[in-house]
Amino acid sequence: MTNTNHPTVLITGFEPFGGEKVNPSWQAVQQLEGLIIEGHIVITRELPCEFDTSLEALYNNIALHDPALVLCVGQAGGRSDISIERIAININDARIQDNAGHQPIDTPVVKGGPDAIFAKLPIKHMLWDLHEALIPASISNTAGTYVCNHVMYGLCHYIDSHKQNLKGGFVHIPYLPSQAVHHSGAPSMTQTTVISALKSMISSALRHDQDLAIAAGTTH
Amino acid sequence: MTNTNHPTVLITGFEPFGGEKVNPSWQAVQQLEGLIIEGHIVITRELPCEFDTSLEALYNNIALHDPALVLCVGQAGGRSDISIERIAININDARIQDNAGHQPIDTPVVKGGPDAIFAKLPIKHMLWDLHEALIPASISNTAGTYVCNHVMYGLCHYIDSHKQNLKGGFVHIPYLPSQAVHHSGAPSMTQTTVISALKSMISSALRHDQDLAIAAGTTH
Amino acid sequence: MTNTNHPTVLITGFEPFGGEKVNPSWQAVQQLEGLIIEGHIVITRELPCEFDTSLEALYNNIALHDPALVLCVGQAGGRSDISIERIAININDARIQDNAGHQPIDTPVVKGGPDAIFAKLPIKHMLWDLHEALIPASISNTAGTYVCNHVMYGLCHYIDSHKQNLKGGFVHIPYLPSQAVHHSGAPSMTQTTVISALKSMISSALRHDQDLAIAAGTTH
Amino acid sequence: MTNTNHPTVLITGFEPFGGEKVNPSWQAVQQLEGLIIEGHIVITRELPCEFDTSLEALYNNIALHDPALVLCVGQAGGRSDISIERIAININDARIQDNAGHQPIDTPVVKGGPDAIFAKLPIKHMLWDLHEALIPASISNTAGTYVCNHVMYGLCHYIDSHKQNLKGGFVHIPYLPSQAVHHSGAPSMTQTTVISALKSMISSALRHDQDLAIAAGTTH
Repeated sequence: MTNTNHPTVLITGFEPFGGEKVNPSWQAVQQLEGLIIEGHIVITRELPCEFDTSLEALYNNIALHDPALVLCVGQAGGRSDISIERIAININDARIQDNAGHQPIDTPVVKGGPDAIFAKLPIKHMLWDLHEALIPASISNTAGTYVCNHVMYGLCHYIDSHKQNLKGGFVHIPYLPSQAVHHSGAPSMTQTTVISALKSMISSALRHDQDLAIAAGTTH
Repeated sequence: MTNTNHPTVLITGFEPFGGEKVNPSWQAVQQLEGLIIEGHIVITRELPCEFDTSLEALYNNIALHDPALVLCVGQAGGRSDISIERIAININDARIQDNAGHQPIDTPVVKGGPDAIFAKLPIKHMLWDLHEALIPASISNTAGTYVCNHVMYGLCHYIDSHKQNLKGGFVHIPYLPSQAVHHSGAPSMTQTTVISALKSMISSALRHDQDLAIAAGTTH
Repeated sequence: MTNTNHPTVLITGFEPFGGEKVNPSWQAVQQLEGLIIEGHIVITRELPCEFDTSLEALYNNIALHDPALVLCVGQAGGRSDISIERIAININDARIQDNAGHQPIDTPVVKGGPDAIFAKLPIKHMLWDLHEALIPASISNTAGTYVCNHVMYGLCHYIDSHKQNLKGGFVHIPYLPSQAVHHSGAPSMTQTTVISALKSMISSALRHDQDLAIAAGTTH
Repeated sequence: MTNTNHPTVLITGFEPFGGEKVNPSWQAVQQLEGLIIEGHIVITRELPCEFDTSLEALYNNIALHDPALVLCVGQAGGRSDISIERIAININDARIQDNAGHQPIDTPVVKGGPDAIFAKLPIKHMLWDLHEALIPASISNTAGTYVCNHVMYGLCHYIDSHKQNLKGGFVHIPYLPSQAVHHSGAPSMTQTTVISALKSMISSALRHDQDLAIAAGTTH
């Protein structure tokens, strides 16, 4: 699959969960398969919306493709913009069952791991570039406590433990318009915009090793 | 201008207000100029965001073009979806000055007019068709008390008074993504989606004289 | 019941609906029974959350007690403050069944009635006095399309038709804190605050025949 | 000051910031001064809304009073309920200047500290007890990136470094109703409810060394 001379980036989306028929993350991510961005070829994978097996699939794909960047993407129904996650926390606290029927409560993602780990990404550069491209985006300080946070924590922990030069992190995206039709009043973002945003963020992440110091915080 | 044999529809957008550099309503509406929808040619006009002069401009254009349908479109910053207004009320209560510097408080739009007037549109058919097209939309029961409501009330009052076979009403649309970049967390809708929505609503409005009875209300 | 020499005011709350065990409107309203406010004795009644029968009960109580003021109060789960309704519209569009199992869609409250009727209350005076008392409040331009709007429209239509010197209108209140415990993230207001707000609004409504011109509108 | 035989708990509020005239945290906290809860005497202090000096004041008071529990309380304007913070992160990213005019961007709270630290509190027990008391509450997974998070991180880091048997954490509270009057549509909570909540949380925190495993997470 990665039988080219290009270095790779690995971009993941999730399968649907919570009663949805599609997951906008995988709908968008799969459109990037094979693209060349900043000299890297994009490899895309769909992760199960399950604790543990999602991380196993992620680790296997990192081992297989040896990417320079891993960007995991998930659905955040109810959010309005592209949210770049700043940090993942070492806890699973599932409000609903995952797709395998598991609902862990206050268990660690990685036993003995630190309480949380910052994204291994130039998140402010990525934000700046999205805004330059007129795409609504913000920094988020929580990826929740479900499978999205689980995958982000597992990824960041893997980087700290095994491959410190790997860049990696997580991005949440809104519902698709077709989903929002069934959630009255929920904001949405078109797949076209999401794809533009993903390309922009991959490019930013590859180009910048140091981050920008621009304010993007919250008072609470 | 309407030198064809086609009957016309008149679609209006507004100029920017409240510190915005663009108004997404006129940005989208002007793209429809000259289109033929259901055998009608689309005429587009930009209205000033001013009490009274907006209505004068509207009335002049109705007189000039004798449309079969008038659809006025305005920006609702903070709303997530296409909202089809059910009713306009006979009051001006401006939270901010209009673009001419006026700020009427609790004055009538039309002295002696009824307290409110329902849209002269098959709003449930329009909603149904938007949902079929997978475009987020809802029925709104208030167009506010600013220039949007003012124009809608004036339009509906004109229809009742002068031209009862004319169809007419008002639609609010979200910020553009480029605007939402400056309003952290605000939902947005792309111009492409808005244009699709406008075409769908014009077509629905022209095709249906009786409305559908589908629930689209709110408990408060 | 009204066997005193005092003129009366009639304040109504609703029975619970939509799966709630209590309705904060009746919980608060019943605490006012027998109070003397501005020389008027307060009579309180609980209305069924049903189309038509709610109005019959209201009309019967107006006939029985001949009040100088009728203030109907209802629950608006999800709203944050006391909202004084500006207008009621002549439509029933029920998103959910009422407590009698009926779900009217786009039927009129009063056949042949005007499209909408403004509250017969000095709403800006009431707002001003609530703010002076440091109670969060706003003017709302829609009471929805369910039983609350139905009762408000029926009341205002009755006043226009039968008793033009009667003051009357509708106020929506938030969930109680005990309800918000079951609606994660929903705002709430304590019964103590609601009771203070109701007393303040009754007093304002009785004291003022002309309204204040203070801006309290919305742009959409 | 702690000249009794009682062990102590230290509860802090903040001074006003962001243009507010009061801070509901200190308004409520100061009412607890001298109370005996679960055999502990409550000591209250107001912290400056400033990076660094807030933490110095906190550390001085911990040294002086040797409390068994430190609960820091802050204002979260716009939130609806009592939010018990699960975790603090090692970053200052100020959207607005603090009260000393400083606006750090992406600096660490504690140089060399871990990326984040979990609250040293039985947060699920505290949540359960608040719900039993019919007080709206939730677990929050971000305390923001301003002075509140700064103080929480500094507290938790101090506990890990100096005094591992000390319990400590952070709670955000809504605006007071008197503040919400100036923020149209913002939710609020009365001081009476906040005081009840604080007493409940202090008691829960003192009584429980192990936490409950009840789901209180978010999907994003």
